[in-house]
Amino acid sequence: MVTAAPSDFASRHRELLEQALVAIRKREYFSAYPESPSPKVYGEHAAADGRAAFEAWLGSPFPLATPGGDGVVATETSPFGIDVGVSYPRVRPDGIETLLAVAAEAIPAWRDAGPDARSGVCLEILARLQARVFELANAVMHTSGQAFVMAFQAGGAHALDRALEAVAYSYDEMTRHPEAAIWEKPGRDEPLRMTKTYTVVPRGIALSIGCNTFPTWNSWPGIFASLVCGNPVVVKPHPRAVLPLAITVQVCQEVLAEAGFAPELVTLAAEDPADGLAAVLAVRSEVRLVDFTGSNAFGDWLETHGTQAVVFTEKSGVNTVVIDSTDSYRGMCFNLAFSLALYTGQMCTAPQNLFVPAAGIDTDEGHQSYDDVAAGIGAALDKLLGDDAKAVELLGAVVNPGVLERLDAAPTRGRVLVESRPVAHPTYPDAVVRTPLLLGLDLDDAEVYAEECFGPVAYLIETPSTAESIETFRRTAREHGAMTASVYTTDEAVLASMRSASLDAGVALSENLTGQVFVNQSAAFSDFHGTGANPAANSAYTDAAYVASRFRIVQSRRHA
Amino acid sequence: MVTAAPSDFASRHRELLEQALVAIRKREYFSAYPESPSPKVYGEHAAADGRAAFEAWLGSPFPLATPGGDGVVATETSPFGIDVGVSYPRVRPDGIETLLAVAAEAIPAWRDAGPDARSGVCLEILARLQARVFELANAVMHTSGQAFVMAFQAGGAHALDRALEAVAYSYDEMTRHPEAAIWEKPGRDEPLRMTKTYTVVPRGIALSIGCNTFPTWNSWPGIFASLVCGNPVVVKPHPRAVLPLAITVQVCQEVLAEAGFAPELVTLAAEDPADGLAAVLAVRSEVRLVDFTGSNAFGDWLETHGTQAVVFTEKSGVNTVVIDSTDSYRGMCFNLAFSLALYTGQMCTAPQNLFVPAAGIDTDEGHQSYDDVAAGIGAALDKLLGDDAKAVELLGAVVNPGVLERLDAAPTRGRVLVESRPVAHPTYPDAVVRTPLLLGLDLDDAEVYAEECFGPVAYLIETPSTAESIETFRRTAREHGAMTASVYTTDEAVLASMRSASLDAGVALSENLTGQVFVNQSAAFSDFHGTGANPAANSAYTDAAYVASRFRIVQSRRHA
Repeated sequence: MVTAAPSDFASRHRELLEQALVAIRKREYFSAYPESPSPKVYGEHAAADGRAAFEAWLGSPFPLATPGGDGVVATETSPFGIDVGVSYPRVRPDGIETLLAVAAEAIPAWRDAGPDARSGVCLEILARLQARVFELANAVMHTSGQAFVMAFQAGGAHALDRALEAVAYSYDEMTRHPEAAIWEKPGRDEPLRMTKTYTVVPRGIALSIGCNTFPTWNSWPGIFASLVCGNPVVVKPHPRAVLPLAITVQVCQEVLAEAGFAPELVTLAAEDPADGLAAVLAVRSEVRLVDFTGSNAFGDWLETHGTQAVVFTEKSGVNTVVIDSTDSYRGMCFNLAFSLALYTGQMCTAPQNLFVPAAGIDTDEGHQSYDDVAAGIGAALDKLLGDDAKAVELLGAVVNPGVLERLDAAPTRGRVLVESRPVAHPTYPDAVVRTPLLLGLDLDDAEVYAEECFGPVAYLIETPSTAESIETFRRTAREHGAMTASVYTTDEAVLASMRSASLDAGVALSENLTGQVFVNQSAAFSDFHGTGANPAANSAYTDAAYVASRFRIVQSRRHA
Repeated sequence: MVTAAPSDFASRHRELLEQALVAIRKREYFSAYPESPSPKVYGEHAAADGRAAFEAWLGSPFPLATPGGDGVVATETSPFGIDVGVSYPRVRPDGIETLLAVAAEAIPAWRDAGPDARSGVCLEILARLQARVFELANAVMHTSGQAFVMAFQAGGAHALDRALEAVAYSYDEMTRHPEAAIWEKPGRDEPLRMTKTYTVVPRGIALSIGCNTFPTWNSWPGIFASLVCGNPVVVKPHPRAVLPLAITVQVCQEVLAEAGFAPELVTLAAEDPADGLAAVLAVRSEVRLVDFTGSNAFGDWLETHGTQAVVFTEKSGVNTVVIDSTDSYRGMCFNLAFSLALYTGQMCTAPQNLFVPAAGIDTDEGHQSYDDVAAGIGAALDKLLGDDAKAVELLGAVVNPGVLERLDAAPTRGRVLVESRPVAHPTYPDAVVRTPLLLGLDLDDAEVYAEECFGPVAYLIETPSTAESIETFRRTAREHGAMTASVYTTDEAVLASMRSASLDAGVALSENLTGQVFVNQSAAFSDFHGTGANPAANSAYTDAAYVASRFRIVQSRRHA
């Protein structure tokens, strides 16, 4: 094994860290990891090599050891229908004691290394994850159902940017105070002089609970924020999306060991789903940080029961589009159709509730009735998804049977405006692919639209007026949460009213998106993902509140 | 009523804010509010005027109106024996609905004012509290039992510094991102350009639960951090220490109204203790922030039950002194005696457990046995407290009957090394004043010393060795919490070991204090009060973690 001093990593990545520190203050465009999977960027063989590396894992035991592990589990199923069959060390509830004890033992040396050394190690991990980005993209694709390019971007490059962003915020907070200061208080005779030392100490063991749809993008910010702040991290992946996080843990352990730290600072806790391992881990006294992405039910449970820890949750909500008027009707229909189709609507940021006034809307193509808008979105979906080969690159595949069940049950709940249809995948004959369903509802169908129907189901809701649309958005977002909101209007007063409602409801707002930016997307270093200001999430990627509680400052003082 | 634009206040206090912003980055000495009650500083009549203003409240209804209030309560008793008898609007549990509704209505205008205007208003409030600092000092003295000079300093000037510190940290975090940014992503044809807006929004209604001993010092940081971040604050004072917070609320309302904001942004919720109002308020869905100082039992209850809110607690712990050796034996004994006597040990930072090796310690005055150390501390206490008139200026008075009961019950739990005695107060014949009790214990008396005995009771604990002392400190602080730790040693290895134990236990350490700095004291802008890293507190005054969760950022974006 090649060994390196942690300071080597710190100096190797110092410039990148400095750039990221500037970027988080400006919130302008910044990206450190190219999002294009082009051979011109990543080299001629990168794609094939990455794919081969991914395929080499299939059907094999993944070479990781987890303290307290007992046997193996193999719980993944590809939404594209290939056999995955990778097995991982299984952690049972009775192995947790050992796992946490080993993690705790690793704390002092990692703590004492300090923010610079820890940042260097974390940025080296990100560099090596980038070197395996094609392998990771395949792993994300075949566990989440994302199409390849999306898996490469959202699951690779953009996830790396989000991780870097979290490291930068953490570093910024850890180093905002000096390591030492001289305190000199004027006195009657002579000043009192004290030397004071301020040391960043970790909060404790961190638990990262992964999700099925975005195993890396949603987990890396929390994992790297906790790790760089000095906390060991136990990674509990979603049973259907283990491989991307197993690779992550492997890379973490490799770099930690090279730098002379205990590899068990980052461990994989794969489970048999029947063990409900996350709930067992999340209430342990040693676990002081929990990051979670997933259902409202379990997220709320964690917030209520994991009171010994700081719990960061991203759950779900009902994302709303208020359609009032537009100066680009085609652009609007295309943009909405794209947002509904992208990854089969399986994004926590995908729009669900589209409000249209009963009187219709004014557009650059004349007045359009409610039915016209439905037809316009339908036509845009047809255009985007008419060709199966192109459709699958946008849709990806249905991530799990739950989504399919919800889709199948949905049509009875409203008027079918645009039907969902199965799409045959030209490469993967067993892939489960569906186009979005658009259902017509009325304003009093709140029992349907006030609940999230995760997957390719959206509602076109007829309202008495735009004012009513905005008021309903404000109320449903406050009560049921929302990750995103969107408005189409040419009326400044409507815009002002929607902005005000978004502040009241604590929801990020996209205005008049008619081009190549979609409400589902949030850009690292510029867009905050989630706000923590409504029930959809109690935190945001990434702000100071997301990192500042992951460490503590312990001081000592003495006469100078 | 004189009205002022919020921007007037902001520009009036801009320079002070800038100074505070520098101070929180340096953590060197900084103070904005002179701690000397001298007429040379505050003017010839300030002391008499302040006292008269305080006395004018006695026996009267305090002129505040609280929405949802019903009748009045008068619950205060002066530890110095004077009649207080001030009555305040009573909030009963069934008045909470109204109180919270009125507070919530005030949010949008206060939110929309922005961080600069809010900071200006808060700093104007602090300026007017300073103008009433002698009145406040009398109010703190006669509710907490602090001697006058301490009440002036800890309850006035230092509390103002802590409040300013909290405002500065909050302002720094709220303004770390720009209000707007241009995001320009390079594209194949032309760049994608978006304008993004970032708005700070409050978390919701804040609840501040005051304590008996430090009604202002412990409450102001949370009150002003919440308020400046846009949150209305409901102030629930300790029933025995209402007046200092009633004056605080009065000043807040006066300045808010002058600046055109709803005075109900800060309200006083005085209670009949039987109503248990804090517990009712703390679990309301509208309450999103809770600040608490007080008992472990209720603090733990809040952390476990107030899961809809971010809960900041300062509870209690067992503060430890490890005595190994010293090059200033007299200085050490004096310093320890002073720390034990100051405000009758009724400080969350006062030392309780003094560990001494059975073999005794090496000092500049030769080897001193365990019994010698007990005698040394006893002699220092005699010197400090031998004269009643001087003693009461250090001791103050016993804050409440609970402290007296614990003191009376203590002697049976160990060997009495230094007796506690009543002191006659030369000015207040009904004042309840006691000197500290020092009890001898052995290392296996953990059931006694592992629990906090709040008040003038300390333990001199004989241990087999300093190594054992340090290990016991590490364990008890981790399990039972500690706000402070202290070490006396001339041995670098012992110092290193104690520093390491302090990091493990997450306790602030004072080393070899033999002069005019005492372990009980923490200086705003330099010392962090509490760490949040052990069970004694889950937060610190003031760091980023203390403020960053008090607001959220809501963004909007549109094509540029």
